[in-house]
Amino acid sequence: MARKSFPLSKVYSLLEPGPVVMVTTARDGYPNIMTMSWHTMIEFEPPLVGCVISNSNYSFGLLKATNECVINIPTVEIAEKVVGCGNTSGAKINKFETFCLTPKPASQVGAPLIEECYANLECRVADTKMVNKYCLFVVEVIKAWIDPTMKNPQTIHHLGRGRFMVAGEKIKLKSKMK
Amino acid sequence: MARKSFPLSKVYSLLEPGPVVMVTTARDGYPNIMTMSWHTMIEFEPPLVGCVISNSNYSFGLLKATNECVINIPTVEIAEKVVGCGNTSGAKINKFETFCLTPKPASQVGAPLIEECYANLECRVADTKMVNKYCLFVVEVIKAWIDPTMKNPQTIHHLGRGRFMVAGEKIKLKSKMK
Repeated sequence: MARKSFPLSKVYSLLEPGPVVMVTTARDGYPNIMTMSWHTMIEFEPPLVGCVISNSNYSFGLLKATNECVINIPTVEIAEKVVGCGNTSGAKINKFETFCLTPKPASQVGAPLIEECYANLECRVADTKMVNKYCLFVVEVIKAWIDPTMKNPQTIHHLGRGRFMVAGEKIKLKSKMK
Repeated sequence: MARKSFPLSKVYSLLEPGPVVMVTTARDGYPNIMTMSWHTMIEFEPPLVGCVISNSNYSFGLLKATNECVINIPTVEIAEKVVGCGNTSGAKINKFETFCLTPKPASQVGAPLIEECYANLECRVADTKMVNKYCLFVVEVIKAWIDPTMKNPQTIHHLGRGRFMVAGEKIKLKSKMK
């Protein structure tokens, strides 16, 4: 599948609705995946994202060591893989193999893109001042990709305890908001 | 409408899916409303929420001065009011009056609840260290309310430029995640 470059100025439109994302990291050629819902946009451009990644997660150490990750946005078609990645630890298994996901080399960072996700945001850690207290990393999106064949991506949104809301209909209102 | 107390331990389930929220503040008896999509959970309990509120917003000064706000969660029924509050400034109008929204006294803070919203989270500012650099306030939810009559609240999720995704169907998967 051919990915298409996506403008950094529009990255907020992918993350602002609050989808569950899959964060990939890699060290020494060994990649990992973490399911994450605790994220927010912090700045439009360059796009800054605040990501809360608990220090009990295997990905925490990988991100601290490499300062690089990819935020991958999955859709409902792979919801079971998303949950699978959330239920397991990269300290014990290779999640790409276990959940039949395809790592694809990124252009700017060492962490891989997940081929099965409809959008991929290559990120570098921009600020670690809130990591000790809140496990909050500020990352900058330096390259964004999208699958142009996916016309109506149905993201999933975590409600807790295995319950998810699937993205529903879209509406348009007269707004001056960016 | 009778509000019901909502457990603080479950607040994350309301915000984690990423809904557009309406933040209320008040100073000297004058209340304001701000539409916000840039927020993330930071801690489960006590619930901490990271809120990015631009210093170009009237609410920024009110929140800095009072250290109190309410995060109100609207549903699609009042989407036009939500956008109206996002398109206007509290420096010029009283948004409660302009958009026919009902302020209701909170129990712990000076900012009012919005009666028309299905959930209301009374908050105190917990950390302002990231305000200068990122306009990021860490607030603690100290009291939560829900409208028990709303069985299937359809939250709205901002896609940018007046486009919103309306919460769709719910699915349940086998998850060990909280």
